[in-house]
Amino acid sequence: MVSQTLTRLSEHRQASNARVDASLEALFSAPAVDARLEQAMHHGLLVGGKRLRPLLVYLSGRALGASDDDLDAPAAAIELIHAYSLIHDDLPAMDDDDLRRGQPTVHKAYDEATAILAGDALQALAFEVLAKASHPRLAALVTTLAVASGRQGMVAGQALDLAAVGGLPDVAALAHMHAHKTGALIEAAVRMGGLVAVEEDDSRLTALARYARAVGLAFQIHDDVLDVTGDTATLGKTSGADAARAKPTYSSLLGLEGARAKARELTDEAIAALAPLGEGAAPLIDLARYMIERDH
Amino acid sequence: MVSQTLTRLSEHRQASNARVDASLEALFSAPAVDARLEQAMHHGLLVGGKRLRPLLVYLSGRALGASDDDLDAPAAAIELIHAYSLIHDDLPAMDDDDLRRGQPTVHKAYDEATAILAGDALQALAFEVLAKASHPRLAALVTTLAVASGRQGMVAGQALDLAAVGGLPDVAALAHMHAHKTGALIEAAVRMGGLVAVEEDDSRLTALARYARAVGLAFQIHDDVLDVTGDTATLGKTSGADAARAKPTYSSLLGLEGARAKARELTDEAIAALAPLGEGAAPLIDLARYMIERDH
Repeated sequence: MVSQTLTRLSEHRQASNARVDASLEALFSAPAVDARLEQAMHHGLLVGGKRLRPLLVYLSGRALGASDDDLDAPAAAIELIHAYSLIHDDLPAMDDDDLRRGQPTVHKAYDEATAILAGDALQALAFEVLAKASHPRLAALVTTLAVASGRQGMVAGQALDLAAVGGLPDVAALAHMHAHKTGALIEAAVRMGGLVAVEEDDSRLTALARYARAVGLAFQIHDDVLDVTGDTATLGKTSGADAARAKPTYSSLLGLEGARAKARELTDEAIAALAPLGEGAAPLIDLARYMIERDH
Repeated sequence: MVSQTLTRLSEHRQASNARVDASLEALFSAPAVDARLEQAMHHGLLVGGKRLRPLLVYLSGRALGASDDDLDAPAAAIELIHAYSLIHDDLPAMDDDDLRRGQPTVHKAYDEATAILAGDALQALAFEVLAKASHPRLAALVTTLAVASGRQGMVAGQALDLAAVGGLPDVAALAHMHAHKTGALIEAAVRMGGLVAVEEDDSRLTALARYARAVGLAFQIHDDVLDVTGDTATLGKTSGADAARAKPTYSSLLGLEGARAKARELTDEAIAALAPLGEGAAPLIDLARYMIERDH
Protein backbone atom coordinates (compact mmCIF):
# COMPACT_ATOMS: atom_id res chain seq x y z
CA MET A 1 0.00 0.00 0.00
CA VAL A 2 2.70 2.43 1.07
CA SER A 3 5.02 1.44 -1.75
CA GLN A 4 2.22 1.64 -4.37
CA THR A 5 1.43 5.19 -3.22
CA LEU A 6 5.08 6.14 -3.47
CA THR A 7 5.56 4.55 -6.89
CA ARG A 8 2.55 6.33 -8.40
CA LEU A 9 3.51 9.61 -6.79
CA SER A 10 7.11 9.21 -7.87
CA GLU A 11 6.09 9.34 -11.54
CA HIS A 12 4.14 12.54 -10.99
CA ARG A 13 7.03 14.04 -9.05
CA GLN A 14 9.59 13.22 -11.72
CA ALA A 15 7.45 14.78 -14.44
CA SER A 16 6.66 17.84 -12.33
CA ASN A 17 10.26 18.35 -11.23
CA ALA A 18 11.52 18.00 -14.81
CA ARG A 19 9.04 20.67 -15.99
CA VAL A 20 9.74 23.16 -13.23
CA ASP A 21 13.51 22.65 -13.35
CA ALA A 22 13.44 23.29 -17.09
CA SER A 23 11.42 26.49 -16.54
CA LEU A 24 13.79 27.67 -13.83
CA GLU A 25 16.95 26.77 -15.73
CA ALA A 26 15.68 28.65 -18.79
CA LEU A 27 15.55 31.82 -16.69
CA PHE A 28 19.34 31.82 -16.63
CA SER A 29 20.00 31.60 -20.36
CA ALA A 30 20.12 35.39 -20.97
CA PRO A 31 23.30 37.42 -20.29
CA ALA A 32 23.50 38.61 -16.67
CA VAL A 33 23.97 42.26 -15.65
CA ASP A 34 25.81 40.98 -12.56
CA ALA A 35 27.11 37.43 -13.02
CA ARG A 36 27.86 36.81 -9.36
CA LEU A 37 24.35 37.85 -8.34
CA GLU A 38 22.80 35.44 -10.82
CA GLN A 39 25.13 32.61 -9.77
CA ALA A 40 23.95 33.12 -6.20
CA MET A 41 20.30 33.11 -7.34
CA HIS A 42 20.96 29.93 -9.31
CA HIS A 43 22.70 28.30 -6.35
CA GLY A 44 19.76 29.06 -4.05
CA LEU A 45 17.25 27.90 -6.63
CA LEU A 46 18.66 24.89 -8.37
CA VAL A 47 20.79 22.97 -5.90
CA GLY A 48 18.46 20.13 -4.87
CA GLY A 49 15.09 20.77 -3.27
CA LYS A 50 11.91 18.72 -3.12
CA ARG A 51 9.89 20.99 -5.47
CA LEU A 52 6.84 20.24 -3.37
CA ARG A 53 5.05 23.52 -4.16
CA PRO A 54 5.34 23.20 -7.95
CA LEU A 55 4.05 19.63 -7.63
CA LEU A 56 1.04 20.96 -5.74
CA VAL A 57 0.44 23.53 -8.50
CA TYR A 58 0.53 20.84 -11.21
CA LEU A 59 -1.57 18.26 -9.33
CA SER A 60 -4.22 20.79 -8.24
CA GLY A 61 -4.44 22.40 -11.64
CA ARG A 62 -4.70 19.08 -13.46
CA ALA A 63 -7.36 17.89 -11.01
CA LEU A 64 -9.53 20.80 -12.22
CA GLY A 65 -8.64 20.38 -15.90
CA ALA A 66 -5.76 22.82 -16.50
CA SER A 67 -3.03 21.99 -19.01
CA ASP A 68 0.57 21.57 -17.88
CA ASP A 69 1.63 24.35 -20.25
CA ASP A 70 -0.61 26.82 -18.44
CA LEU A 71 0.64 25.60 -15.06
CA ASP A 72 4.34 26.09 -15.80
CA ALA A 73 4.43 29.80 -14.88
CA PRO A 74 2.66 29.56 -11.50
CA ALA A 75 4.70 26.44 -10.67
CA ALA A 76 7.97 28.28 -11.35
CA ALA A 77 6.78 31.43 -9.60
CA ILE A 78 5.95 29.69 -6.35
CA GLU A 79 9.30 27.86 -6.30
CA LEU A 80 11.07 31.20 -6.86
CA ILE A 81 9.28 32.62 -3.80
CA HIS A 82 10.11 29.52 -1.75
CA ALA A 83 13.79 29.66 -2.77
CA TYR A 84 14.11 33.35 -1.90
CA SER A 85 12.57 32.72 1.53
CA LEU A 86 15.06 29.93 2.29
CA ILE A 87 18.01 32.16 1.35
CA HIS A 88 16.81 34.94 3.66
CA ASP A 89 15.79 32.57 6.48
CA ASP A 90 19.30 31.08 6.48
CA LEU A 91 21.00 34.48 6.96
CA PRO A 92 23.07 35.08 10.12
CA ALA A 93 20.52 37.63 11.40
CA MET A 94 17.76 35.02 11.01
CA ASP A 95 18.23 31.26 11.53
CA ASP A 96 22.00 31.39 10.84
CA ASP A 97 22.23 28.11 8.95
CA ASP A 98 25.38 26.97 7.13
CA LEU A 99 23.86 23.98 5.35
CA ARG A 100 20.78 23.66 3.16
CA ARG A 101 19.85 20.74 0.92
CA GLY A 102 23.29 19.29 1.70
CA GLN A 103 25.05 22.35 0.24
CA PRO A 104 26.49 25.54 1.74
CA THR A 105 23.78 28.18 2.17
CA VAL A 106 23.98 31.14 -0.21
CA HIS A 107 25.60 33.51 2.29
CA LYS A 108 28.25 30.87 3.02
CA ALA A 109 28.91 30.10 -0.65
CA TYR A 110 28.90 33.83 -1.57
CA ASP A 111 28.47 36.52 1.07
CA GLU A 112 25.72 38.07 3.14
CA ALA A 113 25.04 41.07 0.88
CA THR A 114 24.84 38.85 -2.19
CA ALA A 115 22.47 36.48 -0.36
CA ILE A 116 20.14 39.34 0.57
CA LEU A 117 20.18 40.63 -3.01
CA ALA A 118 19.76 37.17 -4.55
CA GLY A 119 16.66 36.65 -2.42
CA ASP A 120 15.29 40.06 -3.37
CA ALA A 121 15.85 39.38 -7.07
CA LEU A 122 14.25 35.93 -6.88
CA GLN A 123 11.13 37.47 -5.36
CA ALA A 124 10.88 40.02 -8.19
CA LEU A 125 11.51 37.25 -10.72
CA ALA A 126 8.58 35.24 -9.34
CA PHE A 127 6.18 38.04 -10.20
CA GLU A 128 7.87 38.63 -13.56
CA VAL A 129 7.45 34.98 -14.55
CA LEU A 130 3.83 34.98 -13.45
CA ALA A 131 2.98 38.24 -15.23
CA LYS A 132 4.65 37.27 -18.50
CA ALA A 133 2.31 34.28 -18.81
CA SER A 134 -0.59 36.80 -19.11
CA HIS A 135 -3.28 34.48 -17.81
CA PRO A 136 -6.87 35.84 -17.97
CA ARG A 137 -7.02 35.55 -14.16
CA LEU A 138 -3.60 37.17 -13.67
CA ALA A 139 -4.92 39.62 -11.05
CA ALA A 140 -6.11 36.74 -8.85
CA LEU A 141 -2.89 34.78 -9.42
CA VAL A 142 -0.62 37.71 -8.49
CA THR A 143 -2.80 38.64 -5.52
CA THR A 144 -2.76 35.04 -4.26
CA LEU A 145 1.02 34.79 -4.50
CA ALA A 146 1.69 38.24 -3.02
CA VAL A 147 -0.69 37.89 -0.07
CA ALA A 148 0.62 34.41 0.76
CA SER A 149 4.25 35.62 0.58
CA GLY A 150 4.00 38.77 2.65
CA ARG A 151 2.97 40.29 5.93
CA GLN A 152 -0.23 38.22 6.13
CA GLY A 153 1.53 35.01 5.12
CA MET A 154 5.05 33.64 4.91
CA VAL A 155 6.99 36.70 6.08
CA ALA A 156 4.66 37.13 9.06
CA GLY A 157 5.23 33.46 9.91
CA GLN A 158 9.00 33.92 9.89
CA ALA A 159 8.60 36.99 12.15
CA LEU A 160 6.42 34.97 14.56
CA ASP A 161 8.98 32.15 14.47
CA LEU A 162 11.89 34.47 15.28
CA ALA A 163 9.92 36.04 18.13
CA ALA A 164 9.21 32.55 19.55
CA VAL A 165 12.88 31.67 20.12
CA GLY A 166 13.44 31.14 23.84
CA GLY A 167 9.73 30.94 24.58
CA LEU A 168 7.60 27.81 24.38
CA PRO A 169 4.10 28.60 23.20
CA ASP A 170 1.32 26.00 23.16
CA VAL A 171 0.30 23.89 20.15
CA ALA A 172 -2.21 26.54 19.04
CA ALA A 173 0.51 29.21 18.85
CA LEU A 174 2.80 26.83 17.01
CA ALA A 175 0.06 25.97 14.50
CA HIS A 176 -0.66 29.71 14.01
CA MET A 177 3.00 30.35 13.24
CA HIS A 178 3.28 27.39 10.83
CA ALA A 179 0.01 28.27 9.10
CA HIS A 180 1.76 31.48 8.07
CA LYS A 181 5.40 30.42 7.70
CA THR A 182 4.84 27.37 5.48
CA GLY A 183 1.06 26.89 5.26
CA ALA A 184 0.29 30.11 3.38
CA LEU A 185 2.53 29.25 0.44
CA ILE A 186 1.29 25.65 0.28
CA GLU A 187 -2.29 26.95 0.18
CA ALA A 188 -1.27 29.47 -2.49
CA ALA A 189 0.19 26.61 -4.57
CA VAL A 190 -3.09 24.68 -4.75
CA ARG A 191 -5.11 27.88 -5.26
CA MET A 192 -2.89 29.06 -8.10
CA GLY A 193 -3.07 25.65 -9.74
CA GLY A 194 -6.84 25.72 -9.41
CA LEU A 195 -7.15 29.33 -10.60
CA VAL A 196 -5.50 28.40 -13.88
CA ALA A 197 -8.53 26.14 -14.54
CA VAL A 198 -11.55 27.71 -12.84
CA GLU A 199 -13.05 31.04 -11.78
CA GLU A 200 -12.27 32.57 -8.38
CA ASP A 201 -15.67 31.68 -6.92
CA ASP A 202 -15.56 27.98 -7.84
CA SER A 203 -16.24 25.90 -4.72
CA ARG A 204 -13.53 23.40 -5.64
CA LEU A 205 -10.96 26.08 -4.76
CA THR A 206 -12.35 26.00 -1.23
CA ALA A 207 -11.96 22.22 -1.13
CA LEU A 208 -8.35 22.56 -2.33
CA ALA A 209 -7.67 25.20 0.32
CA ARG A 210 -8.99 22.92 3.05
CA TYR A 211 -6.78 20.12 1.71
CA ALA A 212 -3.75 22.41 1.64
CA ARG A 213 -4.19 23.66 5.19
CA ALA A 214 -4.33 20.10 6.58
CA VAL A 215 -1.50 18.83 4.38
CA GLY A 216 0.67 21.87 5.17
CA LEU A 217 0.37 21.34 8.90
CA ALA A 218 0.95 17.57 8.57
CA PHE A 219 4.06 18.35 6.52
CA GLN A 220 5.39 20.64 9.24
CA ILE A 221 4.65 18.21 12.05
CA HIS A 222 6.42 15.47 10.11
CA ASP A 223 9.39 17.85 9.66
CA ASP A 224 9.57 18.20 13.43
CA VAL A 225 9.41 14.42 13.81
CA LEU A 226 12.24 14.03 11.27
CA ASP A 227 14.30 16.63 13.13
CA VAL A 228 14.27 14.19 16.09
CA THR A 229 14.41 10.84 14.27
CA GLY A 230 16.38 11.66 11.11
CA ASP A 231 20.10 11.96 10.57
CA THR A 232 21.98 14.88 9.03
CA ALA A 233 23.06 12.99 5.90
CA THR A 234 19.50 11.96 4.95
CA LEU A 235 17.94 15.31 5.82
CA GLY A 236 20.55 17.41 4.01
CA LYS A 237 20.45 19.80 6.95
CA THR A 238 21.63 19.62 10.52
CA SER A 239 19.39 17.19 12.44
CA GLY A 240 18.44 18.17 15.97
CA ALA A 241 18.90 21.82 14.94
CA ASP A 242 15.55 22.90 16.37
CA ALA A 243 16.16 21.19 19.69
CA ALA A 244 19.65 22.72 19.88
CA ARG A 245 18.09 26.18 19.52
CA ALA A 246 15.43 25.32 22.14
CA LYS A 247 12.74 26.13 19.57
CA PRO A 248 9.28 24.81 20.35
CA THR A 249 8.26 21.92 18.06
CA TYR A 250 5.32 19.55 17.82
CA SER A 251 7.58 16.75 19.01
CA SER A 252 8.58 18.64 22.14
CA LEU A 253 5.02 19.78 22.89
CA LEU A 254 3.06 16.62 21.97
CA GLY A 255 5.75 13.97 22.30
CA LEU A 256 6.94 11.97 19.31
CA GLU A 257 3.94 9.62 19.22
CA GLY A 258 1.48 12.45 19.82
CA ALA A 259 3.00 14.38 16.92
CA ARG A 260 2.79 11.32 14.65
CA ALA A 261 -0.87 10.76 15.57
CA LYS A 262 -1.68 14.41 14.87
CA ALA A 263 -0.02 14.21 11.45
CA ARG A 264 -2.05 11.08 10.58
CA GLU A 265 -5.27 12.77 11.68
CA LEU A 266 -4.53 15.80 9.50
CA THR A 267 -3.75 13.55 6.54
CA ASP A 268 -7.19 11.94 6.87
CA GLU A 269 -8.75 15.41 6.99
CA ALA A 270 -6.85 16.44 3.87
CA ILE A 271 -8.01 13.38 1.94
CA ALA A 272 -11.63 13.87 3.04
CA ALA A 273 -11.54 17.48 1.84
CA LEU A 274 -10.86 16.29 -1.71
CA ALA A 275 -14.17 14.40 -2.06
CA PRO A 276 -15.80 17.09 -4.30
CA LEU A 277 -12.95 16.76 -6.82
CA GLY A 278 -13.56 13.11 -7.74
CA GLU A 279 -11.09 10.83 -9.53
CA GLY A 280 -8.82 13.61 -10.76
CA ALA A 281 -7.66 14.23 -7.21
CA ALA A 282 -6.10 10.77 -6.74
CA PRO A 283 -2.50 12.05 -7.05
CA LEU A 284 -3.23 14.70 -4.40
CA ILE A 285 -4.33 11.87 -2.08
CA ASP A 286 -1.05 10.05 -2.76
CA LEU A 287 0.81 13.25 -2.01
CA ALA A 288 -0.98 13.70 1.32
CA ARG A 289 0.10 10.20 2.32
CA TYR A 290 3.66 10.81 1.14
CA MET A 291 3.92 13.92 3.32
CA ILE A 292 4.00 11.82 6.48
CA GLU A 293 5.91 8.85 5.04
CA ARG A 294 8.95 10.66 3.65
CA ASP A 295 12.31 10.30 5.45
CA HIS A 296 13.68 13.73 4.41
CA MET B 1 12.24 81.54 -13.41
CA VAL B 2 13.65 79.06 -10.91
CA SER B 3 11.17 80.07 -8.24
CA GLN B 4 8.23 79.91 -10.69
CA THR B 5 9.24 76.36 -11.64
CA LEU B 6 9.44 75.38 -8.00
CA THR B 7 6.11 76.99 -7.09
CA ARG B 8 4.25 75.24 -9.90
CA LEU B 9 5.94 71.94 -9.16
CA SER B 10 5.32 72.31 -5.46
CA GLU B 11 1.54 72.22 -6.02
CA HIS B 12 1.84 69.01 -8.05
CA ARG B 13 4.10 67.49 -5.45
CA GLN B 14 1.80 68.31 -2.56
CA ALA B 15 -1.19 66.78 -4.35
CA SER B 16 0.80 63.71 -5.43
CA ASN B 17 2.32 63.17 -1.99
CA ALA B 18 -1.07 63.53 -0.30
CA ARG B 19 -2.56 60.89 -2.61
CA VAL B 20 0.25 58.37 -2.28
CA ASP B 21 0.60 58.86 1.48
CA ALA B 22 -3.13 58.25 1.87
CA SER B 23 -2.85 55.05 -0.23
CA LEU B 24 0.12 53.84 1.78
CA GLU B 25 -1.35 54.75 5.17
CA ALA B 26 -4.56 52.88 4.28
CA LEU B 27 -2.51 49.70 3.87
CA PHE B 28 -1.98 49.68 7.64
CA SER B 29 -5.61 49.92 8.75
CA ALA B 30 -6.23 46.14 8.94
CA PRO B 31 -5.15 44.08 11.99
CA ALA B 32 -1.54 42.86 11.73
CA VAL B 33 -0.48 39.21 12.05
CA ASP B 34 2.81 40.46 13.50
CA ALA B 35 2.54 44.01 14.85
CA ARG B 36 6.27 44.64 15.15
CA LEU B 37 6.85 43.58 11.53
CA GLU B 38 4.20 46.01 10.32
CA GLN B 39 5.55 48.82 12.51
CA ALA B 40 8.94 48.29 10.90
CA MET B 41 7.36 48.33 7.42
CA HIS B 42 5.50 51.51 8.33
CA HIS B 43 8.66 53.10 9.69
CA GLY B 44 10.57 52.38 6.50
CA LEU B 45 7.72 53.55 4.33
CA LEU B 46 6.17 56.56 5.95
CA VAL B 47 8.92 58.44 7.77
CA GLY B 48 9.64 61.29 5.36
CA GLY B 49 10.82 60.70 1.80
CA LYS B 50 10.58 62.77 -1.34
CA ARG B 51 8.01 60.54 -3.07
CA LEU B 52 9.71 61.26 -6.37
CA ARG B 53 8.70 57.99 -8.06
CA PRO B 54 4.96 58.32 -7.31
CA LEU B 55 5.14 61.91 -8.61
CA LEU B 56 6.62 60.58 -11.85
CA VAL B 57 3.79 58.04 -12.12
CA TYR B 58 1.14 60.75 -11.67
CA LEU B 59 2.75 63.32 -13.96
CA SER B 60 3.50 60.81 -16.74
CA GLY B 61 0.07 59.24 -16.55
CA ARG B 62 -1.73 62.57 -16.56
CA ALA B 63 0.37 63.75 -19.50
CA LEU B 64 -1.11 60.86 -21.52
CA GLY B 65 -4.66 61.30 -20.19
CA ALA B 66 -4.91 58.84 -17.26
CA SER B 67 -7.05 59.66 -14.22
CA ASP B 68 -5.49 60.06 -10.80
CA ASP B 69 -7.72 57.27 -9.46
CA ASP B 70 -6.22 54.81 -11.93
CA LEU B 71 -2.70 56.01 -11.11
CA ASP B 72 -2.98 55.49 -7.34
CA ALA B 73 -2.08 51.77 -7.38
CA PRO B 74 1.05 52.01 -9.55
CA ALA B 75 2.15 55.12 -7.61
CA ALA B 76 1.86 53.27 -4.29
CA ALA B 77 3.43 50.10 -5.71
CA ILE B 78 6.56 51.83 -6.92
CA GLU B 79 7.05 53.64 -3.60
CA LEU B 80 6.70 50.29 -1.79
CA ILE B 81 9.51 48.87 -3.94
CA HIS B 82 11.66 51.95 -3.37
CA ALA B 83 11.10 51.80 0.40
CA TYR B 84 11.99 48.09 0.59
CA SER B 85 15.20 48.73 -1.36
CA LEU B 86 16.29 51.48 1.04
CA ILE B 87 15.70 49.24 4.07
CA HIS B 88 17.82 46.46 2.58
CA ASP B 89 20.51 48.83 1.22
CA ASP B 90 20.97 50.28 4.72
CA LEU B 91 21.64 46.86 6.33
CA PRO B 92 25.02 46.24 7.99
CA ALA B 93 25.96 43.69 5.28
CA MET B 94 25.24 46.31 2.60
CA ASP B 95 25.83 50.08 3.03
CA ASP B 96 25.61 49.91 6.86
CA ASP B 97 23.79 53.23 7.34
CA ASP B 98 22.37 54.35 10.69
CA LEU B 99 20.45 57.36 9.42
CA ARG B 100 17.90 57.68 6.63
CA ARG B 101 15.59 60.62 5.99
CA GLY B 102 16.77 62.06 9.31
CA GLN B 103 15.53 59.00 11.24
CA PRO B 104 17.17 55.80 12.47
CA THR B 105 17.25 53.19 9.70
CA VAL B 106 14.90 50.24 10.19
CA HIS B 107 17.56 47.83 11.47
CA LYS B 108 18.64 50.47 14.03
CA ALA B 109 15.08 51.25 15.15
CA TYR B 110 14.14 47.53 15.22
CA ASP B 111 16.71 44.82 14.46
CA GLU B 112 18.39 43.27 11.46
CA ALA B 113 16.07 40.29 11.05
CA THR B 114 13.01 42.53 11.25
CA ALA B 115 14.53 44.90 8.69
CA ILE B 116 15.16 42.05 6.23
CA LEU B 117 11.59 40.77 6.71
CA ALA B 118 10.04 44.25 6.51
CA GLY B 119 11.77 44.79 3.17
CA ASP B 120 10.65 41.38 1.92
CA ALA B 121 7.04 42.09 2.93
CA LEU B 122 7.05 45.55 1.33
CA GLN B 123 8.15 44.02 -1.96
CA ALA B 124 5.30 41.50 -1.86
CA LEU B 125 2.89 44.28 -0.91
CA ALA B 126 3.91 46.29 -3.97
CA PHE B 127 2.74 43.50 -6.28
CA GLU B 128 -0.39 42.92 -4.18
CA VAL B 129 -1.41 46.59 -4.44
CA LEU B 130 -0.77 46.60 -8.17
CA ALA B 131 -2.67 43.35 -8.81
CA LYS B 132 -5.70 44.35 -6.74
CA ALA B 133 -6.27 47.35 -9.01
CA SER B 134 -6.95 44.85 -11.86
CA HIS B 135 -5.97 47.18 -14.68
CA PRO B 136 -6.58 45.84 -18.23
CA ARG B 137 -2.81 46.13 -18.85
CA LEU B 138 -1.91 44.47 -15.54
CA ALA B 139 0.49 42.00 -17.17
CA ALA B 140 2.55 44.88 -18.62
CA LEU B 141 2.41 46.82 -15.34
CA VAL B 142 3.59 43.88 -13.21
CA THR B 143 6.26 42.94 -15.76
CA THR B 144 7.55 46.53 -15.86
CA LEU B 145 7.78 46.76 -12.08
CA ALA B 146 9.29 43.29 -11.62
CA VAL B 147 11.93 43.65 -14.34
CA ALA B 148 12.95 47.12 -13.11
CA SER B 149 13.21 45.87 -9.52
CA GLY B 150 15.20 42.73 -10.02
CA ARG B 151 18.32 41.19 -11.46
CA GLN B 152 18.12 43.27 -14.66
CA GLY B 153 17.38 46.48 -12.77
CA MET B 154 17.61 47.83 -9.24
CA VAL B 155 18.99 44.75 -7.48
CA ALA B 156 21.67 44.32 -10.16
CA GLY B 157 22.60 47.99 -9.66
CA GLN B 158 23.04 47.50 -5.93
CA ALA B 159 25.21 44.42 -6.63
CA LEU B 160 27.35 46.44 -9.07
CA ASP B 161 27.60 49.24 -6.51
CA LEU B 162 28.76 46.89 -3.75
CA ALA B 163 31.33 45.33 -6.06
CA ALA B 164 32.67 48.81 -6.92
CA VAL B 165 33.73 49.67 -3.36
CA GLY B 166 37.47 50.15 -3.28
CA GLY B 167 37.74 50.38 -7.06
CA LEU B 168 37.32 53.53 -9.12
CA PRO B 169 35.61 52.79 -12.42
CA ASP B 170 35.29 55.41 -15.13
CA VAL B 171 32.23 57.54 -15.80
CA ALA B 172 30.77 54.92 -18.15
CA ALA B 173 30.91 52.22 -15.47
CA LEU B 174 29.39 54.59 -12.94
CA ALA B 175 26.55 55.49 -15.33
CA HIS B 176 25.97 51.78 -16.02
CA MET B 177 25.65 51.09 -12.29
CA HIS B 178 23.32 54.06 -11.70
CA ALA B 179 21.18 53.23 -14.73
CA HIS B 180 20.34 50.00 -12.89
CA LYS B 181 20.44 51.02 -9.23
CA THR B 182 18.20 54.10 -9.49
CA GLY B 183 17.50 54.60 -13.19
CA ALA B 184 15.53 51.40 -13.76
CA LEU B 185 12.90 52.26 -11.17
CA ILE B 186 12.61 55.87 -12.37
CA GLU B 187 12.05 54.60 -15.89
CA ALA B 188 9.51 52.08 -14.56
CA ALA B 189 7.64 54.94 -12.85
CA VAL B 190 7.07 56.89 -16.07
CA ARG B 191 6.30 53.72 -18.03
CA MET B 192 3.74 52.54 -15.49
CA GLY B 193 2.10 55.95 -15.43
CA GLY B 194 1.98 55.92 -19.23
CA LEU B 195 0.74 52.31 -19.41
CA VAL B 196 -2.31 53.25 -17.37
CA ALA B 197 -3.32 55.53 -20.26
CA VAL B 198 -2.02 53.97 -23.47
CA GLU B 199 -1.17 50.64 -25.12
CA GLU B 200 2.28 49.09 -24.78
CA ASP B 201 3.33 49.99 -28.33
CA ASP B 202 2.45 53.71 -28.06
CA SER B 203 5.48 55.76 -29.13
CA ARG B 204 4.90 58.23 -26.30
CA LEU B 205 6.08 55.55 -23.88
CA THR B 206 9.43 55.61 -25.70
CA ALA B 207 9.58 59.40 -25.30
CA LEU B 208 8.84 59.02 -21.58
CA ALA B 209 11.53 56.37 -21.24
CA ARG B 210 14.09 58.66 -22.87
CA TYR B 211 13.06 61.46 -20.50
CA ALA B 212 13.34 59.12 -17.50
CA ARG B 213 16.81 57.86 -18.38
CA ALA B 214 18.19 61.41 -18.65
CA VAL B 215 16.37 62.69 -15.57
CA GLY B 216 17.40 59.64 -13.54
CA LEU B 217 21.06 60.14 -14.28
CA ALA B 218 20.83 63.90 -13.65
CA PHE B 219 19.19 63.11 -10.32
CA GLN B 220 22.03 60.80 -9.35
CA ILE B 221 24.75 63.22 -10.41
CA HIS B 222 23.06 65.96 -8.39
CA ASP B 223 22.95 63.57 -5.40
CA ASP B 224 26.72 63.19 -5.70
CA VAL B 225 27.10 66.98 -5.87
CA LEU B 226 24.93 67.37 -2.76
CA ASP B 227 27.02 64.75 -0.95
CA VAL B 228 29.95 67.16 -1.31
CA THR B 229 28.21 70.53 -0.93
CA GLY B 230 25.29 69.70 1.40
CA ASP B 231 25.20 69.41 5.16
CA THR B 232 23.88 66.47 7.19
CA ALA B 233 20.92 68.38 8.67
CA THR B 234 19.55 69.42 5.26
CA LEU B 235 20.21 66.07 3.59
CA GLY B 236 18.72 63.98 6.40
CA LYS B 237 21.62 61.59 5.91
CA THR B 238 25.32 61.74 6.67
CA SER B 239 26.96 64.18 4.23
CA GLY B 240 30.34 63.19 2.81
CA ALA B 241 29.36 59.56 3.36
CA ASP B 242 30.34 58.49 -0.13
CA ALA B 243 33.76 60.19 0.06
CA ALA B 244 34.36 58.61 3.49
CA ARG B 245 33.78 55.17 1.94
CA ALA B 246 36.05 56.04 -1.02
CA LYS B 247 33.18 55.22 -3.37
CA PRO B 248 33.52 56.56 -6.89
CA THR B 249 31.15 59.46 -7.60
CA TYR B 250 30.53 61.86 -10.48
CA SER B 251 32.03 64.64 -8.35
CA SER B 252 35.24 62.70 -7.78
CA LEU B 253 35.53 61.60 -11.41
CA LEU B 254 34.39 64.77 -13.21
CA GLY B 255 35.06 67.41 -10.56
CA LEU B 256 32.26 69.42 -8.97
CA GLU B 257 31.83 71.79 -11.93
CA GLY B 258 32.10 68.99 -14.48
CA ALA B 259 29.39 67.06 -12.62
CA ARG B 260 27.12 70.11 -12.53
CA ALA B 261 27.58 70.71 -16.25
CA LYS B 262 26.77 67.06 -17.02
CA ALA B 263 23.59 67.27 -14.94
CA ARG B 264 22.49 70.42 -16.81
CA GLU B 265 23.17 68.76 -20.17
CA LEU B 266 21.09 65.73 -19.20
CA THR B 267 18.26 67.98 -18.04
CA ASP B 268 18.17 69.62 -21.47
CA GLU B 269 18.07 66.17 -23.06
CA ALA B 270 15.21 65.13 -20.81
CA ILE B 271 13.17 68.20 -21.69
CA ALA B 272 13.82 67.74 -25.42
CA ALA B 273 12.60 64.13 -25.22
CA LEU B 274 9.18 65.33 -24.08
CA ALA B 275 8.43 67.23 -27.31
CA PRO B 276 5.99 64.58 -28.67
CA LEU B 277 3.84 64.89 -25.54
CA GLY B 278 2.88 68.55 -25.99
CA GLU B 279 1.41 70.83 -23.30
CA GLY B 280 0.45 68.03 -20.91
CA ALA B 281 4.12 67.37 -20.22
CA ALA B 282 4.79 70.83 -18.71
CA PRO B 283 4.91 69.53 -15.12
CA LEU B 284 7.45 66.88 -16.19
CA ILE B 285 9.63 69.70 -17.55
CA ASP B 286 9.37 71.51 -14.22
CA LEU B 287 10.33 68.28 -12.47
CA ALA B 288 13.42 67.82 -14.66
CA ARG B 289 14.56 71.32 -13.68
CA TYR B 290 13.83 70.70 -10.02
CA MET B 291 16.00 67.57 -10.03
CA ILE B 292 19.18 69.65 -10.32
CA GLU B 293 18.00 72.59 -8.23
CA ARG B 294 16.98 70.77 -5.04
CA ASP B 295 19.19 71.11 -1.94
CA HIS B 296 18.32 67.67 -0.47
